[in-house]
Amino acid sequence: MPLHGKNFIGGQISARGSDTFQPVNPATGEKLEPVYFEARQDEISQAAESAALALEERHHNDPEQNAALLELIAIEIEGLGDRLLERAHLETALPLARLASERQRTVSQLRLLAGVAREGSWVDARIDRAIPGRTPQPKPDLRRMLVPIGAVAVFGASNFPLAFSVAGGDTASALAAGCPVVVKAHPSHPGTSELTARAVQKALADASMPEDWFSMVHSADPAASLFLVQLPAIRAVAFTGSQKAGKALFDAAAARAEPIPVYAEMGSVNPVFLLPGAMAERAEALAAGIHQSVTLGVGQFCTNPGLVVAIDGEPLERLLEGLRAAVRQTPPCSMLNQRISRAYAAGVERLASTDGVELLANSPVDPEPDKAEGAAMVFATDAETYLDRKQLHEEVFGPATLVVRCQNLDEMLDVAADLEGQLTATVHATPTELAMSGELLHILQSKAGRLIANGFPTGVEVSPAMHHGGPYPATTDVRATSVGTAAILRFARPVCYQDFPEAVLPPELRDQNVRGIWRMIDGVWGKQ
Amino acid sequence: MPLHGKNFIGGQISARGSDTFQPVNPATGEKLEPVYFEARQDEISQAAESAALALEERHHNDPEQNAALLELIAIEIEGLGDRLLERAHLETALPLARLASERQRTVSQLRLLAGVAREGSWVDARIDRAIPGRTPQPKPDLRRMLVPIGAVAVFGASNFPLAFSVAGGDTASALAAGCPVVVKAHPSHPGTSELTARAVQKALADASMPEDWFSMVHSADPAASLFLVQLPAIRAVAFTGSQKAGKALFDAAAARAEPIPVYAEMGSVNPVFLLPGAMAERAEALAAGIHQSVTLGVGQFCTNPGLVVAIDGEPLERLLEGLRAAVRQTPPCSMLNQRISRAYAAGVERLASTDGVELLANSPVDPEPDKAEGAAMVFATDAETYLDRKQLHEEVFGPATLVVRCQNLDEMLDVAADLEGQLTATVHATPTELAMSGELLHILQSKAGRLIANGFPTGVEVSPAMHHGGPYPATTDVRATSVGTAAILRFARPVCYQDFPEAVLPPELRDQNVRGIWRMIDGVWGKQ
Repeated sequence: MPLHGKNFIGGQISARGSDTFQPVNPATGEKLEPVYFEARQDEISQAAESAALALEERHHNDPEQNAALLELIAIEIEGLGDRLLERAHLETALPLARLASERQRTVSQLRLLAGVAREGSWVDARIDRAIPGRTPQPKPDLRRMLVPIGAVAVFGASNFPLAFSVAGGDTASALAAGCPVVVKAHPSHPGTSELTARAVQKALADASMPEDWFSMVHSADPAASLFLVQLPAIRAVAFTGSQKAGKALFDAAAARAEPIPVYAEMGSVNPVFLLPGAMAERAEALAAGIHQSVTLGVGQFCTNPGLVVAIDGEPLERLLEGLRAAVRQTPPCSMLNQRISRAYAAGVERLASTDGVELLANSPVDPEPDKAEGAAMVFATDAETYLDRKQLHEEVFGPATLVVRCQNLDEMLDVAADLEGQLTATVHATPTELAMSGELLHILQSKAGRLIANGFPTGVEVSPAMHHGGPYPATTDVRATSVGTAAILRFARPVCYQDFPEAVLPPELRDQNVRGIWRMIDGVWGKQ
Repeated sequence: MPLHGKNFIGGQISARGSDTFQPVNPATGEKLEPVYFEARQDEISQAAESAALALEERHHNDPEQNAALLELIAIEIEGLGDRLLERAHLETALPLARLASERQRTVSQLRLLAGVAREGSWVDARIDRAIPGRTPQPKPDLRRMLVPIGAVAVFGASNFPLAFSVAGGDTASALAAGCPVVVKAHPSHPGTSELTARAVQKALADASMPEDWFSMVHSADPAASLFLVQLPAIRAVAFTGSQKAGKALFDAAAARAEPIPVYAEMGSVNPVFLLPGAMAERAEALAAGIHQSVTLGVGQFCTNPGLVVAIDGEPLERLLEGLRAAVRQTPPCSMLNQRISRAYAAGVERLASTDGVELLANSPVDPEPDKAEGAAMVFATDAETYLDRKQLHEEVFGPATLVVRCQNLDEMLDVAADLEGQLTATVHATPTELAMSGELLHILQSKAGRLIANGFPTGVEVSPAMHHGGPYPATTDVRATSVGTAAILRFARPVCYQDFPEAVLPPELRDQNVRGIWRMIDGVWGKQ
């Protein structure tokens, strides 16, 4: 079936409006067929309201069915075959090999979250047994667990057209928690989104779930996004993208009559601190590692290391020489879309035009704007300039990094203390240095969600112990992760049942542990 | 030592300003000594900044020390003896017996949270072991746990001068998590607050913790509260009180350069649904139970049942007769302060003046405004009127309740579906009715944080399975509880350590489980 360019409102293909937009192949500037129909407000409302109604009509969360749905989505995505990757390649300019591995990650995280839903202990079930004879007051029977928070609005991210898009981590964790989802497709890959939405619709039918459990709306107009998050039927929001867009969603949700949680992951500069011992040992290897992490995927990762902090001296000169040489051999590459490549060009121009900032190296040829290209670039400045100029602290989304030369460790600490909230912070150090870096690590822990020793921030494992989040402006909710199994916790809220008879309780809270989950009984964890 | 009327800025007694306010005995209208010094902005800033600095300087959270601090606070509060209860009685008009039991609750919850801190599993430690040989990418070693969120601003509540005030549940859970606290004392019981703050300061010294770990500021000016939550050094806010004040704090925090979580518990009407079978069986007993729950503590509980929903008929007439008789024998009592008694008078006047609302019964004598008295009152209306008039949906804080007569179960469901977010919802039903009330229970679960079967919402157990929270406007964060051990989770955020050497990791995340806590290793819970 060819792409139809329409919205998915529950089970209906919908194109009530006449406004359209057309995706563009960023690598060629050519328009891609078909045109996409902007969702009208009545379509967006219907999507949200039918999702909320579907949840209302499902009287009991069914973990097994949620798990089956996620697994069926994975199968359907695999079943799309090369067509999905080819369309994603046309829409994003990401290489097919990268897209194949992103697809692998996408289906793996769907299956990982299916496992979390099926295993079931994530609901944090707690039972306090009654003591009817307690004085002065009898102790009631209290049983508490997490239940679905409600219909969730998910915003597809441009930089992960599969893994953080229509059936990406946010959708997977919301569905795993038992929440229906309304996806706002990213307008830079609507065809990829349409193929994935079809896979989800097919999986819903196969899982015997209502078709209203999932909707997807298209729009290139930010007003549609704000409209979606302000709908009363929406109870939580997940987003990955720019600080500006994420903050706008957060503000819109906070201004609602009933404010709701917004989990916006807005990227960061992901500083890398290079301590003297590590530099003395392996400045060249660090140059190669930084270059690779900075330019991977044309620098279009939220964890891209945009800031390198080191101490002046001979090892730093060796590192910079290595970085220069590597950058000079890195050709410009097409970025995800024209908007992103223009923003990147503006960002590096901001760096280049700042007094005290030096452009150390650049791709060997100029980027072609018509191909949305971004050139690899490395800049350097000194700590004093960095600390003075707040414009150097902003993320430049793309394959550029800024090396900050410090006079000494104290200046390095000053740079660390001056950082905004980050997704990650990395330290390269010898074992002895690391053991002696308590103050630096303590500062970085207060700034970042993930600390990395002797590695690079790109490459985010999807697993139980991952935390992909951090203090504002890295995210709008320092308590939440958008990667890993703990991501499911974003879409739940506790409910306590007091003195409920066994038969009326959810299975997770009955005397007999029919689901075999971990529970806290009278304050003690166990599987009894 | 007599009361000094000054602010506690870290270890310093501080009164830099000249503005003062004086507490009043609500039962007599007499002013109470001493006058209290309004904290100036520089004092509030210093309190917040010194708290944040104290956390920065504590490189490792020390659960044993946090637990010891809580236990010492409990001992110090007990050591205040009758003086604390007598002062609280003068400031709040709450009876001494009630205050004695509230003190018991306060020290119990301090000790309960000490136990949670000492046991340590609440940090949700997760370890994913490395697989260096994995292809195409090695799997890193990832270890994640919850760490303190930062300095916390706690707002004392007027209606629990001990249990939700200076060393109440919010302070106890923030300290248990390892966060320093700045308390904004409630201006209606500043002397009680001062005595408690002294106890906390003494306990800090005994626990060898920095005196900056705790501060307390006085103010009767709402601007001081907004100023406090907007200080960059403050990282989370806990509040119990009115919807207006709670929402103002939420809005101020959302508008910060770096938004932070606000846990505002703002009360609710706590509907009680009476199903026909239960009514036929025990209308008189229900009348007695409702009367007691409505008038307990002059109705000044967040869980006070302000709405009773039942089906018209003979059993309802019996219940109303019982309620009438009981209310007519309930004398007016002094409320917590003049402001609250005036707001209560305005609230019942709003009910009484609504077309279609009938005043069924009233206390036997008029309340004396000079004594801040509130009269017990019971109103009745029909479901249609209730559904039509939104002013009937607002909480009236005090000993009044509104009985809604429904024609049938469908109308009862309509009332349930129309509710705003609630802390609690109660159903009285026979076992058979309860088993057949899936739809009602499902609706109520979407509206409330705690569902109660055949009981009353007042009396909130402090225990692991308690959930004291709910959808907006009951609270500003549907994910959080302000009562019970899960309250500690409000004041923490996850941090992940990637490839960190054993020696640099927090004890909770080392290979050997030195703290003996529950941990998730490669996705499996255990104590290994």
